[in-house]
Amino acid sequence: MAHISIIGTGNMGQAISGVVTQGGSTVELFSTSDTDKPVTGDIVVLAVPYTAVSLVLDQRGDQLDGKIVVDITNPLNFDTFDSLTVPADSSAAAEIAAKLPNSHVLKAFNTTFAGTLAAGTVGPLPTTVLIAGDDSNAKSVLTGVLTAGGLKALDAGSLKRAREMEALGFLQLSLAASEKISWTGGFGIVT
Amino acid sequence: MAHISIIGTGNMGQAISGVVTQGGSTVELFSTSDTDKPVTGDIVVLAVPYTAVSLVLDQRGDQLDGKIVVDITNPLNFDTFDSLTVPADSSAAAEIAAKLPNSHVLKAFNTTFAGTLAAGTVGPLPTTVLIAGDDSNAKSVLTGVLTAGGLKALDAGSLKRAREMEALGFLQLSLAASEKISWTGGFGIVT
Repeated sequence: MAHISIIGTGNMGQAISGVVTQGGSTVELFSTSDTDKPVTGDIVVLAVPYTAVSLVLDQRGDQLDGKIVVDITNPLNFDTFDSLTVPADSSAAAEIAAKLPNSHVLKAFNTTFAGTLAAGTVGPLPTTVLIAGDDSNAKSVLTGVLTAGGLKALDAGSLKRAREMEALGFLQLSLAASEKISWTGGFGIVT
Repeated sequence: MAHISIIGTGNMGQAISGVVTQGGSTVELFSTSDTDKPVTGDIVVLAVPYTAVSLVLDQRGDQLDGKIVVDITNPLNFDTFDSLTVPADSSAAAEIAAKLPNSHVLKAFNTTFAGTLAAGTVGPLPTTVLIAGDDSNAKSVLTGVLTAGGLKALDAGSLKRAREMEALGFLQLSLAASEKISWTGGFGIVT
């Protein structure tokens, strides 16, 4: 399938690694301190908190030229759980895309908890990964990787829709943090 | 249960009327031209497009004092399906609340299509109505009315969360308009 670099070894990085490996793709997993090892994947997943993304881009910006770069972040103020830390008319994905003009930036995975990625289901529904981006081919490639791994994927439109996906991710996190939903639940999509 | 005034006789007004009636509440349904009939409900649902809300508030502002007022709108630019028409750091609900300082404004129903309200299910899941608002008692009253009518309701937090709910409503509408999901599907919530 594809060769995928995942930067970030937390719950999300591991869950994404599991899914794409199951679909036949190869994975190289990096911690943020593996700065001497260049990424070699066709797809690079930034599976770090939004606050750590700038550092990763500073370290690896040039290595990402021509690659599909996947932003999975929810740029939340985790102290207050009451706002996002990106400008109201922008998104983390838009900020990242502005810094990577030679990459194909996608927004994905920020609306699915690690538990539902690993399980492949959210309650009775198959886990669906929303993907936003301006490059149709990049979206197709990621869709292929995910559906091979047993998930559903849905094209959410242009990268501009990352703003709404981040609002959805924020709402879902706030519902889980306030124990209205569990970390194995959340929003499922009925097509 | 409660006495509910619904302004707006479209799909959403009718679906909400069906749900609350099923739960034992009484309903009075108004079209926007019924301006000579005052609203008498404890809960007033503004089931009109966002572009028509200002007119309704101009006509009935004083009648809404002390009442629970429910904003169900998705303030979308329906020409482009590419943006909301409210300021990026605000929401339709916040704009309405600013105009109704003596009412208890809630955001609800904007993330559930009329079809899923009427059916009581979205795919295999019970239909869940998200409710945001700053008045806990008002949220409890609406929750009681909806659960009596067979739906689930979930407290989404303060009225500030209307912004994220409107982003979710926007995303859901754009997915349906682009035929990625059907009008009887959409986002379900697994608790």
